[in-house]
Amino acid sequence: MALFQPGISLSRRLRRTPFSEGVEAAGVKGYTVYNHMLLPTVFESVEADYHHLKRHVQVWDVACERQVELRGPDAGRLMQMLTPRDLRCMMAGQCYYVPIVDETGGMLNDPVAVKLAEDRWWISIADSDLLYWVKGIANGWRLDVLVDEPDVSPLAIQGPKAEDLMARVFGETVRAIRFFRFGVYQFEGRDLVVARSGYSKQGGFEIYVEGSDIGMPLWHRLFEAGADLEVRAGCPNLIERIESGLLSYGNDMTDDNTPHECGLGRFCNTHTAIGCIGRDALLRVAKEGPVQQIRPIAIAGDAVPPCDRFWPLYANGRRVGRVSSATWSPDHTTNVAIGMVKMTHWDAGTQVEVETPDGMRPATVHENFWN
Amino acid sequence: MALFQPGISLSRRLRRTPFSEGVEAAGVKGYTVYNHMLLPTVFESVEADYHHLKRHVQVWDVACERQVELRGPDAGRLMQMLTPRDLRCMMAGQCYYVPIVDETGGMLNDPVAVKLAEDRWWISIADSDLLYWVKGIANGWRLDVLVDEPDVSPLAIQGPKAEDLMARVFGETVRAIRFFRFGVYQFEGRDLVVARSGYSKQGGFEIYVEGSDIGMPLWHRLFEAGADLEVRAGCPNLIERIESGLLSYGNDMTDDNTPHECGLGRFCNTHTAIGCIGRDALLRVAKEGPVQQIRPIAIAGDAVPPCDRFWPLYANGRRVGRVSSATWSPDHTTNVAIGMVKMTHWDAGTQVEVETPDGMRPATVHENFWN
Repeated sequence: MALFQPGISLSRRLRRTPFSEGVEAAGVKGYTVYNHMLLPTVFESVEADYHHLKRHVQVWDVACERQVELRGPDAGRLMQMLTPRDLRCMMAGQCYYVPIVDETGGMLNDPVAVKLAEDRWWISIADSDLLYWVKGIANGWRLDVLVDEPDVSPLAIQGPKAEDLMARVFGETVRAIRFFRFGVYQFEGRDLVVARSGYSKQGGFEIYVEGSDIGMPLWHRLFEAGADLEVRAGCPNLIERIESGLLSYGNDMTDDNTPHECGLGRFCNTHTAIGCIGRDALLRVAKEGPVQQIRPIAIAGDAVPPCDRFWPLYANGRRVGRVSSATWSPDHTTNVAIGMVKMTHWDAGTQVEVETPDGMRPATVHENFWN
Repeated sequence: MALFQPGISLSRRLRRTPFSEGVEAAGVKGYTVYNHMLLPTVFESVEADYHHLKRHVQVWDVACERQVELRGPDAGRLMQMLTPRDLRCMMAGQCYYVPIVDETGGMLNDPVAVKLAEDRWWISIADSDLLYWVKGIANGWRLDVLVDEPDVSPLAIQGPKAEDLMARVFGETVRAIRFFRFGVYQFEGRDLVVARSGYSKQGGFEIYVEGSDIGMPLWHRLFEAGADLEVRAGCPNLIERIESGLLSYGNDMTDDNTPHECGLGRFCNTHTAIGCIGRDALLRVAKEGPVQQIRPIAIAGDAVPPCDRFWPLYANGRRVGRVSSATWSPDHTTNVAIGMVKMTHWDAGTQVEVETPDGMRPATVHENFWN
C-alpha cells in the first residue's frame, strides 16, 4: 500500500527538531508536517513499526507537540478561560487532557495541559497554532501573563518495555510516576519534566526536553541503554492509534466540532468551569446532547487505501456521517476506522456503507475501539 | 539535486484543495504543507518549471492562501488593530500587503488584505493560523464582528501570457485591472474576485474561487482556453521567488522579527496607524531602526544543497547573520539567497562567509534582488 507517493519539499519553514539527526540516521522513510515541524510517520514500514511498538520500546521524535507556556499571576485564570474542563482541583505535577474551544464551542485544539506551578503552565498542543489564540485572548482581556513558545521538545518513549528503558536512564523512581502525572528528573545536570503519557495505548512516557542542545545526547543515551531491549526509533503509528481510538485534531475533528461530538463530553464540566470561553454555547450542547458523535467503525473487505479525505457514510442512500481515519489492522484482521456518525445510526451494530476511493463498502458501527 | 527524498504521508489533516484533482492529473511530483493544506512545489522539475514560468503562463493551486473573513460593524476597526499599515485611505476594490504584528512588534503573518466593503474584508494569509489571533483579539476586545474561514480558494494565473489567458476566460476588461486592485467577474453565474497580484514577479492574477464546486470547472476552462499559450500547471517557484526577493513567512521571517528587520518598514505607518496592536513597540524600532535586516546574498560556487535550516553567516569568525532561503539560479548563474544580516555587515558589496551543509563558502551582500 503506497502511503506516500509524492515527495516532500524540505525548507526552513518545515522546522527540523533537536532529534532530526537521529531520526535521519535511523532511516526515516516518510514525514508529515505538524505545527510547522517535521513529524516522522514511518521507519521500516507502518506495519513493521506497529508490531515492534506492541512488543518492545520505541523512541519517538514528537518535538512537534510544541508547548504554549503561560507565566504570571493570571496564568491560571487564562488556562481556565481556554477550556471547559474544571481545573480547580488540578495540582502542580498533574497533566490534564483539555479540549480548547472558541466562543461557539468549536474545538481549536485538544492539548495536554501541564501544570508546573500555580503561575506556570505548559499546553502541549495538537496541530494548530494555539499560541495565536492564547496570545489574542491574553491581549484582549488585558491579562497579566506572558505567553510564548519555549525551547521545549517532547521525546516519547512508548511500548511495553518503556518503563524498563526509562528506569535505566532516569532511575528506578520513574516507575512510580502515575498516569498523567509528572516528575522532574536530571539529565546532564538539567531538570527535565518526565510524564507518564503518550500518543499510544502501549504505555510509556514523554520527556519534555528543555534546551535543544541536549536533544541528541539524550537520544543517544536512550539507544545505548536500550540496545538489549530492542529499542528503535518510532513515531505515532497510524494503525495502533486508530485501533486505540486516539483522536487526531485536523483528521477526526476540526473547529466545526464540539467536544461532545468528539466523545469528549466527560472532559467538559460546563456548569463549574466558570470563565470558560464558549461555556454558553456548550451548556446547550451538554443539555441536549450532540446530534452526531465519533464512533469506531469496522470496514469490510481488503485493506483500504490511505484515507486522505472524508469518506462519506450512507444508510439507505442517505448521508449519515463520514470516516476520517482508516487503515487495515493486522492484529484484528479488519479495516479499523474512526467516523462521525449521526445519532440515527450511531448505535453499536448498525450497518452502514462507506464510500472509499475504490468503491462502496459495507461497514459496522462498533461499541468500543479495538485496544 | 534531490529537493525531496522522503515521502509525504497523506492524511485528511493535510487538506486537499478544490484543484487537487487537476494538480494530480498534471503530474505533481512534490508537495509542501501550508496552512494545513497541500501546496504543490514541483511539476516537471523546479528548473524546468522556472523557465516555463518566465516565458509562458501557469495555473497555480494556491488554495492554501486561506482567507480570514471579517464581517460586521467593527470589521474595519479590527483590521486596523491587526496591522501597523495605515488603512484609512484604502478603498473597497484595493488589496494591501499588510504586516501583522503582536504586542511586541513580532510578525505573526504577512498577508494581503482585500477590502470587499467597509464592513467586509478578507485577509489572504501566509503560513500561520492567523484566524486564531484574529478570533482571540475580536473576543477579548468584544468587537462586533464575525471572523471565520470561508470556502474561498485562490487560483493564481502567473507568467507573461497571464493577461492574454485571463482575457479569454473573463473578457478584455481584466486587462484594465491595476496592480493590487481587483474586479468582480462572472464564472458559471458566480461572482468571483479577480485581483492583479500573485507570488511571482512575472505578472499575473489571483482568482478568489468562492465555492469549491466550481474549482475544477474553472481549472479545465483555463486549460482549454490556453492550449496555444502553452499553459501548464505550476506553483510558486523556489528559484523565481528568491531571485525576485519575495519573502516567505516561516522561512525568511518568524515572530522573532519585526517588519523593519524584514525590510517592510515602508508598510508601517506607525505614527498614524492608531489602534494598532504592537504600535508602542514599533515606534521605538521605527525611530532607532533595526539592528539586522533582510538582504539579497550571492553565494559562490556550484549549486548549493536545499536550504532546510538556517545557514549561519560569518565575518572574521564572528556570527553576523543567517541565510534562510537559497538556490542555484540558472539565469543569473550564481546561487541566490535571502539572508538576515547585522547592520555591521549589511552594506552592499560586503564579503561574508556562509556555512552550508557541504562546507563554508564565500558570499556577497547585494544591493538589490535579481528580478
